[in-house]
Amino acid sequence: MSVDLRLYALVDPDRSGGRTLEDIARAVVEGGATLVQLRDKAGSTLRMIEEAKAIKAALAGSFVPFLINDRVDVALAAGADGVHIGWDDMPVADARTLLGREAIVGLSIKTAEQAQAAPLELLDYVCIGGVFETQSKDNPEPPVGATGFAELAGIIRKRKPNMPAGAIAGIDESNAARVIAAGADGIAVISALSLAPDPKAAARKLREIVDAALSQRGAA
Amino acid sequence: MSVDLRLYALVDPDRSGGRTLEDIARAVVEGGATLVQLRDKAGSTLRMIEEAKAIKAALAGSFVPFLINDRVDVALAAGADGVHIGWDDMPVADARTLLGREAIVGLSIKTAEQAQAAPLELLDYVCIGGVFETQSKDNPEPPVGATGFAELAGIIRKRKPNMPAGAIAGIDESNAARVIAAGADGIAVISALSLAPDPKAAARKLREIVDAALSQRGAA
Repeated sequence: MSVDLRLYALVDPDRSGGRTLEDIARAVVEGGATLVQLRDKAGSTLRMIEEAKAIKAALAGSFVPFLINDRVDVALAAGADGVHIGWDDMPVADARTLLGREAIVGLSIKTAEQAQAAPLELLDYVCIGGVFETQSKDNPEPPVGATGFAELAGIIRKRKPNMPAGAIAGIDESNAARVIAAGADGIAVISALSLAPDPKAAARKLREIVDAALSQRGAA
Repeated sequence: MSVDLRLYALVDPDRSGGRTLEDIARAVVEGGATLVQLRDKAGSTLRMIEEAKAIKAALAGSFVPFLINDRVDVALAAGADGVHIGWDDMPVADARTLLGREAIVGLSIKTAEQAQAAPLELLDYVCIGGVFETQSKDNPEPPVGATGFAELAGIIRKRKPNMPAGAIAGIDESNAARVIAAGADGIAVISALSLAPDPKAAARKLREIVDAALSQRGAA
């Protein structure tokens, strides 16, 4: 399935700034988010299913796909469009089997080894990072920077040209254009949207930056 | 599906006494366990899937069903026989839909409200408790005792006679006969098996106690 990574909004109850997750999701999609992911590493299975169902209802009619971090069971129970998984989650092949060919399955890439080993033929996209410093996730590895992003994306695209690759971690208005210039198809963002005073306006601004950087790259 | 609850062995990496989970599972089944459950509340999805696959392989040919606590995704990925769920896990109806009619789905019952509300028509068994004090799980509620077990089982069986009902929490050789006399079809056990010096011998002893108490109840 073709995935539009331009503005990939992650919503997380630990980074919600007191808002409901469905309000954040609705607002950022109105502002131009092209993909939404629910991440909840701390809650019960029931809580995550309830969050997922609420977000799915809020996005009904938007045509923006909705993914679940890690949990294939939650994706299946809530009828989400797919999952984003890491290397401690379900193996990609198992997730693809359980979710079917039409589902979106994305994978995190943090190292050159992962970029070489990722089962790209089973994936719809990759997210490369952490690119910059972030407060929203424990990342033992140092950030790879825009240069590291370009190297990892290069490994991926040597194996599979045109593989959609987003950049994640610490991305905001100040550095979004830089990662797009380095080859990212889009940016994955948590705090710069969900903790912004106005998430819809923040999404609109980030989409403008991404779209401008993409067309500049296309013209170069 | 008909479930034999006589000796329901839970294996948990936090209560393994340095043994592998598959070694514990194999030993207790050799000793007479009739049902095995993997519980892992702390690990990653990948770890739990790997544990589940190892236990399933160890039990191949034993005809003892193997269930997963909470995680329908892990059950599906590992090809387990079903799940045991609590009230913070996936709703029973969703789990039944995802796993299908042939899967085993069991539910924890801790209160009279839960005994009244449980969707018994979708369940293969219930586990009632905590019956006694236990060290292996954070249980905010006080233990219900053998008397409380009988009350909760009474609510369940008034709604659905012959519903298989096991007893859980703090059960060992000293009190197993008491919960069977109170109406349990079997006992669910963690520490009394997995932390025993010889899990196989401990399983054999517990099965003897349960079987004797069941035949005494049948004769009464």
